[in-house]
Amino acid sequence: MSGVYPYTFKKLIETISQLPGLGEKSATRISFFLLSKPELCEILGELIKELPYKVKLCKFCRNLSEEEICSICKDEKRNSELLCIVENPVSLSYIEETGVFNGYYFVLHYLLSPKDGIGPKELGLDHMLYLIKLRNIREIIIALSPTLSGEATTSYILEVLKDYPVKVTKIACGIPMGMEIQFVDPLTLKKALFGREILKEK
Amino acid sequence: MSGVYPYTFKKLIETISQLPGLGEKSATRISFFLLSKPELCEILGELIKELPYKVKLCKFCRNLSEEEICSICKDEKRNSELLCIVENPVSLSYIEETGVFNGYYFVLHYLLSPKDGIGPKELGLDHMLYLIKLRNIREIIIALSPTLSGEATTSYILEVLKDYPVKVTKIACGIPMGMEIQFVDPLTLKKALFGREILKEK
Ligand SMILES: [Zn+2]
Ligand SMILES: [Zn+2]
Repeated sequence: MSGVYPYTFKKLIETISQLPGLGEKSATRISFFLLSKPELCEILGELIKELPYKVKLCKFCRNLSEEEICSICKDEKRNSELLCIVENPVSLSYIEETGVFNGYYFVLHYLLSPKDGIGPKELGLDHMLYLIKLRNIREIIIALSPTLSGEATTSYILEVLKDYPVKVTKIACGIPMGMEIQFVDPLTLKKALFGREILKEK
Repeated sequence: MSGVYPYTFKKLIETISQLPGLGEKSATRISFFLLSKPELCEILGELIKELPYKVKLCKFCRNLSEEEICSICKDEKRNSELLCIVENPVSLSYIEETGVFNGYYFVLHYLLSPKDGIGPKELGLDHMLYLIKLRNIREIIIALSPTLSGEATTSYILEVLKDYPVKVTKIACGIPMGMEIQFVDPLTLKKALFGREILKEK
């Protein structure tokens, strides 16, 4: 279909098609849109080109940052006894959005997954141990998705922390707020029962 | 949600969200993907930046071209008696794909649409008249979509060509190949009946 387009245009469609969630059709639509917006091309092209140079990982928490140390790690008003372990910058931003956590973070970037070649080394937990000492952390909150890889990673982190004088907790599994019980899967329901909250002691 | 991302990253998500068919969620996904592919950023960023400078409209047919005259207009083996009027480069490429047309093209880029401020001037039919003389065109094939705007534009082109010694045809409307009659809308069926093909004369 793109046989008659000029080289640069074909190449642009091909390259945009490599982005996640985009096929040749949507890439073609986007390319025509860009062709009609020269100023947008200038801005977007520059942003994409400079991305790898500008956005790096924070030296401490490994979250995205334009400076060596991110704004969260620089914030001295946070509770330096709490360290929250997250899979990636997206979950970090979701947790920040809740507004209920004011400690520091450590971003794994990977979950254990032998079939994808992700072993203990890829998690970089030495860096987590370094942060624990540096910040005088008392509690590690593991906030990973309750999936197979997430659970395996949680167990592994727990193992690594076995002999460290820190409390380790993990975020609760249960029924999503507002969801009717009949729509919850049995495993979640089981977890919700085990993790039940005490409302009144006797 | 993107509150904790660094400036460049937020700006990238925002800018990608402006592209057709993409929202904040898919833009975020694409931005993270790009962050993990520095070489792709280099290539794609450069392609987008240079797009408005490299891809222009052919001086003759107004199709996309990296040179002043596109490869179709340069091809002297084509039938210079036929000129096909298309709405945009996409329909041009679809017609080329069929392999049954070997004349030249003229791309309108617009269809008449008073509510969008597209009047006769925007069609640039003077240029079409110039091509008719230049190439010694004998037949104009109007290949516009059978929509309200398409039909209005067809009528207008016909009006403009009233006194020119050229044959004017338009591509046939009818039932798409392979479609069952019960799924065809009544208007298309009506057109298909009017435009019926003679298989045997008496
Ligand atoms: Zn940080
Ligand atoms: Zn041309």
